[in-house]
Amino acid sequence: MPSTPAHDRALSALDRFRVELPSWGFADTGTRFGKFFQDAAASNLEEKLHDAGHVHQLTAACPTVAVHVLWDFDDASDTSSAEKTKKMAADHGVSIGSVNPNLFQDQEYRHGSLCSPDASARERAMTHCRESIALGAAVGSKSLAMWMADGTNYPGQDSIRRRFGALKEAYVQLASHMRDAWPGATFLAEYKPFEPAFYQTDIPDWGASLLLCQAAGDNAKVLVDTGHHLPGCNIEQIVALLLAEGRLGGFHFNDRKYADDDLTLGSIDPYAVFRIFHEIASFEHDTGLAPGGAGVDYMIDQSHNLKPKLEAMVQTVCEAQKQFAKAQLVDRAKLAEFQGAGDLVGAETVLKEAYEADVSGLLAEWRRAHGAAEDPLATLRSSGVIEQLGKERAAAREAAGGQRGGGYA
Amino acid sequence: MPSTPAHDRALSALDRFRVELPSWGFADTGTRFGKFFQDAAASNLEEKLHDAGHVHQLTAACPTVAVHVLWDFDDASDTSSAEKTKKMAADHGVSIGSVNPNLFQDQEYRHGSLCSPDASARERAMTHCRESIALGAAVGSKSLAMWMADGTNYPGQDSIRRRFGALKEAYVQLASHMRDAWPGATFLAEYKPFEPAFYQTDIPDWGASLLLCQAAGDNAKVLVDTGHHLPGCNIEQIVALLLAEGRLGGFHFNDRKYADDDLTLGSIDPYAVFRIFHEIASFEHDTGLAPGGAGVDYMIDQSHNLKPKLEAMVQTVCEAQKQFAKAQLVDRAKLAEFQGAGDLVGAETVLKEAYEADVSGLLAEWRRAHGAAEDPLATLRSSGVIEQLGKERAAAREAAGGQRGGGYA
Amino acid sequence: MPSTPAHDRALSALDRFRVELPSWGFADTGTRFGKFFQDAAASNLEEKLHDAGHVHQLTAACPTVAVHVLWDFDDASDTSSAEKTKKMAADHGVSIGSVNPNLFQDQEYRHGSLCSPDASARERAMTHCRESIALGAAVGSKSLAMWMADGTNYPGQDSIRRRFGALKEAYVQLASHMRDAWPGATFLAEYKPFEPAFYQTDIPDWGASLLLCQAAGDNAKVLVDTGHHLPGCNIEQIVALLLAEGRLGGFHFNDRKYADDDLTLGSIDPYAVFRIFHEIASFEHDTGLAPGGAGVDYMIDQSHNLKPKLEAMVQTVCEAQKQFAKAQLVDRAKLAEFQGAGDLVGAETVLKEAYEADVSGLLAEWRRAHGAAEDPLATLRSSGVIEQLGKERAAAREAAGGQRGGGYA
Amino acid sequence: MPSTPAHDRALSALDRFRVELPSWGFADTGTRFGKFFQDAAASNLEEKLHDAGHVHQLTAACPTVAVHVLWDFDDASDTSSAEKTKKMAADHGVSIGSVNPNLFQDQEYRHGSLCSPDASARERAMTHCRESIALGAAVGSKSLAMWMADGTNYPGQDSIRRRFGALKEAYVQLASHMRDAWPGATFLAEYKPFEPAFYQTDIPDWGASLLLCQAAGDNAKVLVDTGHHLPGCNIEQIVALLLAEGRLGGFHFNDRKYADDDLTLGSIDPYAVFRIFHEIASFEHDTGLAPGGAGVDYMIDQSHNLKPKLEAMVQTVCEAQKQFAKAQLVDRAKLAEFQGAGDLVGAETVLKEAYEADVSGLLAEWRRAHGAAEDPLATLRSSGVIEQLGKERAAAREAAGGQRGGGYA
Repeated sequence: MPSTPAHDRALSALDRFRVELPSWGFADTGTRFGKFFQDAAASNLEEKLHDAGHVHQLTAACPTVAVHVLWDFDDASDTSSAEKTKKMAADHGVSIGSVNPNLFQDQEYRHGSLCSPDASARERAMTHCRESIALGAAVGSKSLAMWMADGTNYPGQDSIRRRFGALKEAYVQLASHMRDAWPGATFLAEYKPFEPAFYQTDIPDWGASLLLCQAAGDNAKVLVDTGHHLPGCNIEQIVALLLAEGRLGGFHFNDRKYADDDLTLGSIDPYAVFRIFHEIASFEHDTGLAPGGAGVDYMIDQSHNLKPKLEAMVQTVCEAQKQFAKAQLVDRAKLAEFQGAGDLVGAETVLKEAYEADVSGLLAEWRRAHGAAEDPLATLRSSGVIEQLGKERAAAREAAGGQRGGGYA
Repeated sequence: MPSTPAHDRALSALDRFRVELPSWGFADTGTRFGKFFQDAAASNLEEKLHDAGHVHQLTAACPTVAVHVLWDFDDASDTSSAEKTKKMAADHGVSIGSVNPNLFQDQEYRHGSLCSPDASARERAMTHCRESIALGAAVGSKSLAMWMADGTNYPGQDSIRRRFGALKEAYVQLASHMRDAWPGATFLAEYKPFEPAFYQTDIPDWGASLLLCQAAGDNAKVLVDTGHHLPGCNIEQIVALLLAEGRLGGFHFNDRKYADDDLTLGSIDPYAVFRIFHEIASFEHDTGLAPGGAGVDYMIDQSHNLKPKLEAMVQTVCEAQKQFAKAQLVDRAKLAEFQGAGDLVGAETVLKEAYEADVSGLLAEWRRAHGAAEDPLATLRSSGVIEQLGKERAAAREAAGGQRGGGYA
Repeated sequence: MPSTPAHDRALSALDRFRVELPSWGFADTGTRFGKFFQDAAASNLEEKLHDAGHVHQLTAACPTVAVHVLWDFDDASDTSSAEKTKKMAADHGVSIGSVNPNLFQDQEYRHGSLCSPDASARERAMTHCRESIALGAAVGSKSLAMWMADGTNYPGQDSIRRRFGALKEAYVQLASHMRDAWPGATFLAEYKPFEPAFYQTDIPDWGASLLLCQAAGDNAKVLVDTGHHLPGCNIEQIVALLLAEGRLGGFHFNDRKYADDDLTLGSIDPYAVFRIFHEIASFEHDTGLAPGGAGVDYMIDQSHNLKPKLEAMVQTVCEAQKQFAKAQLVDRAKLAEFQGAGDLVGAETVLKEAYEADVSGLLAEWRRAHGAAEDPLATLRSSGVIEQLGKERAAAREAAGGQRGGGYA
Repeated sequence: MPSTPAHDRALSALDRFRVELPSWGFADTGTRFGKFFQDAAASNLEEKLHDAGHVHQLTAACPTVAVHVLWDFDDASDTSSAEKTKKMAADHGVSIGSVNPNLFQDQEYRHGSLCSPDASARERAMTHCRESIALGAAVGSKSLAMWMADGTNYPGQDSIRRRFGALKEAYVQLASHMRDAWPGATFLAEYKPFEPAFYQTDIPDWGASLLLCQAAGDNAKVLVDTGHHLPGCNIEQIVALLLAEGRLGGFHFNDRKYADDDLTLGSIDPYAVFRIFHEIASFEHDTGLAPGGAGVDYMIDQSHNLKPKLEAMVQTVCEAQKQFAKAQLVDRAKLAEFQGAGDLVGAETVLKEAYEADVSGLLAEWRRAHGAAEDPLATLRSSGVIEQLGKERAAAREAAGGQRGGGYA
């Protein structure tokens, strides 16, 4: 590919594009109908960091790993192991990314966590969040990612307003506490329309997340999980509006066809992924930011029951880079001209040309320059790494009595 | 029905419950596949006010009529006829309610109105809104109901952020202008996820409406049209959150199964209507407001292609009163007790008992006391009014050369 | 309530209305985000049958219990225990209803069961189905309920046509085998649009179920799970079409707001439940069948994470009876008259009058006559049974080392 | 692009790939909120055929034009003008394709057409269909495309079973009549879940269409309109099942994000279009048919309010060819191997490689060889044809008194 301004812009944007890996994405997981186990699944934080490190080695784009407090730390209340954890990550070539409290698995959370009608559950949840904040600061992370399962299953089960009020109070306290205890870090407020709650989720959409962030302060931003929307929802518009408001914190990447299906990014609707990146690139362009410089956190949130976990992660990172790079190629001057003239077909064509551009050469060039594999997925698949890990871990698991875990129930 | 506290509360709440009728709901209308004409359809403002007056006479619950500036005024720029219009309404026993600008039918609005890329279209839209505000003040209305069709059909067609920015600027100006030119009136900001725009609507959801209202000022509130949501959306939760924020302005009532289907309220999902009223009654209870005293505007927005328009309106008013009255019967002390105890089935049962209560006696009592028909729909259907109007209007129409109109294309 | 023809028809229809309870509905269950345990949850078939028997005792409407082969039989290949099982059920006042093979939990089914690309998985699934048929015949059940999780998560993962062809072949063989081995029993073919498969489910809708049944023979009928449809789907129309084709086998009852949410019947949309029963009653009326005589199997399929299982089951049975009884009250002569005249409001009013009728007296009358509790839910809640069972079972569980199970993962 | 077997297969498949243009797609149209007029819109059959001829000239892929009986023939009962119509089409380089009866615009159809409760409406509809069949045979068309708006807006409005029974009887008669009166032609049975009917559409889904076709006979096939599905529906699976049953008749091409949005094909979800073509190519491959030889009718059904009609049609034809060509490139041997091995990522990668292939060279090669423009859209846009037509037609329209029409209301 010749060195055009667009080409160079894409390359430099890719330098700023980092995709965070989820520790839980390397562990066994499933649906409520069952789990299908994989020999190579990771069972503890060390194995997860190893796998994340391997993905980063192949892609050079994944320097951080999101952690789940309940699954990845032996004792959430003990920050003394932070140095050990940081070193463990460093040994695998990565560092600790967003810290994810777990506010949904304890039996006490059956009616909610931060907005449960039960004061003891609320207090337990606040304590867990404060401990997560302490852990986050201790391990050098840059963000707390708050996803809560709070909600109700039946009309009347609880007061929607009381719950939202309790949540707002909690978020205000936590974000304020973070500004002292973990300066510079971001409080990310995720939303989800349903599941595991089936009548009402306490933070159902971006509007609710935004209200909470407005109350919580400037360190609070909205986290957009691409799978957490009602059918038909225009996600890129939400992205555009949040950017304009200065409240887009980041993404949890996955794809879905029906509900929160946890599929690899772009596996169902790749053009929609491109359009999200297009909105961000357009914002950066219009506000004079460097390409890729909007300060958005890109994180993967996927738990795979059938795809080999390492493959799924590498696939997603490569797909994200592909669509991200294409979005840099949009000819924005031409686009603005067609938009101004009300030329629908002209404007659409500009967008589609970028979407349909072949960026494999550009990505290979970037990867060569950064010491990554030119085709990370092919390299992974032909390397035998997964088979080898499978053998080792199966043997270790057998030796340890068959224990599995470290992820969703 | 015996006079219990709940019974009395419901009766007094009904005193405060007013349902505004839409002038356009009495005119011929249809889908993009065609219109089916009705002899009794109204063709001009006088006929619409007549019909609305008849509904109010039957129900004693509909003292105001929403007007559509383009369809109901000969010249939007001329406020001199305001006195005549007010008198015409008064002659039919009603007064003028919300004023609805029309920002979607002029050819110039093909790419939008207040946020069109075309400055001339934007200016035309602003002028129309200012004229609507002048008209509203002149006719003694209490609100401006802003629904806009602005949006795009294709990815790339226009800049989502530029459009939203333009819209925000316009809303800020208009709401500010209203505070001077029409003090005490409410600027109602409606939202809709799609149609007539098919890729992106500029105010797609309550979150977007809320952002606009926050910018526009305290006289700006969100208008919830019950048919303007994505499938599965929990509307009563939106109502609860807007109430808590002090930003719920009012409703456009209708029902839908699929998209914006414009069906009579409660015809598809009556329990959902009850749950909306339950959230409002719960808010009134918790904040010490009188039952029905939350200051929410209840308006009908339905255009019927098949149901006789008068019947559909009476049906909707009666259904609204029915579900509203039931919501007053919820035993809130008992509900709060079950909610606090995490007793799902207990709490749900309290709600369902109110929903399943027979309020026909209570409504008949209220209607007798207010000079309405005890069973407005039955009275209308047996009165022969629609047949009589049909004859008269068909004859008048024939005499006038067959002209029809006054509503959706 | 006076003894009118409608009243008597409803009473006699209720005599024919039986609701089958699911054994797995009494065991602990959850979502993929976790389970919330209940002390009173049943852990084995005996406890499940006990609980089902208790529901039947309270309602007199639930003489049969659906069983899940994998969870309720120690050894699916051994029919010798059938007599013991039958006796165990009889001891609790119930008998064994539909038999549900489990084709989704074995690791071998990771790519499907009857239509897996793996011949060994297909064979295992066929063997399990044949064993289930043998068990069904041995325990005196009347139906095999086939729900399969088969499907794929990604475009390209497998050949949709090959899979459907394999499924059809399997269904043809199994239904044919049933005609010999289990004469008189029904092969019920369920469908589901998604979950646990997220790109494509091999039997996604009623059309696919119907194709399979047409191939499989007259003993094959479609099973409609009320929660297994895309958003907005008109379920009662599917019911009407299947009745007309002679292919409606039965129902799995539950409710949902978003996806397959497994909520209690009618908790979200009770009018929709009524409309389903209305279609069935209308079919019975038009074809001269006795009210309730259409030969449809009514089964509950709900697994509750939060509601006490016994309460949820009693609630559902009562809700089903309530809506079923209301549907009997529709004045079909009047309805037909309005329909023939194109009188929309008249026809709708007839339907709504039945829906809004108070049938509590009628149901109490029926229950008194059949030795059930007049208000089964209130009786259950005040009886202390759940608390007592909780104590006993918690103690037994502790004694046994904490083992839980018998339901969804 | 080098001449590989895949390349040659794609070229030869393109030879068999024809996209039919809709006459109504060149006329003014809109939504229920209004129409935006275009100077270049066609107002009569001659202008429509001219425009279709121009699209065919640019693309060499559109030899036929679908006609709408009510809009394109002066007198449906008069087949004597068939020769003139055929000649008019031939003069513009095209011929008459599918014939579309209009069963939704007459006032008499307010409660339905072929299944209206009104016998006179049913008879009128039958007559219109028979006349359409006569016209179709006379003009040398190959198919009758039956889309009906029949349905109801409210529960109870009519008997769903009676309506479906009437429809089935009508389809049986019409398809039988076609076998005599129009041998070799196909009776295409379209479905749609909603709009213009809002409670229930009489042919809501492919299952209902299939039942009708099974009853109607072998000349009856299902017509899949890509915009006529509930949110989330897996359309390519329906295509696969219909192919396996020998009942896939053809397509109406368009795209949608929300409902039946009538957008240009692939403008929202191009990967979904590719997957549909992949299923067809896979069927052809597995059954030994020539590539593109499945005998499926590809038709456009789009009415554009904003995009210039000629541009939208050319865009859609090019998009269809692009995705169709890509689907020919799938390495089916490799795909089958990965599928058999349960290698999800391998199989998906094979599909995605074809989807992401750059086929612009291949298409240009095919176009050069067939006398089409290499880039039909660019050629059209730079040709000034639309501007020229706009001037001519605006002048002619003015001269004729402003009459517009020939399409949706």
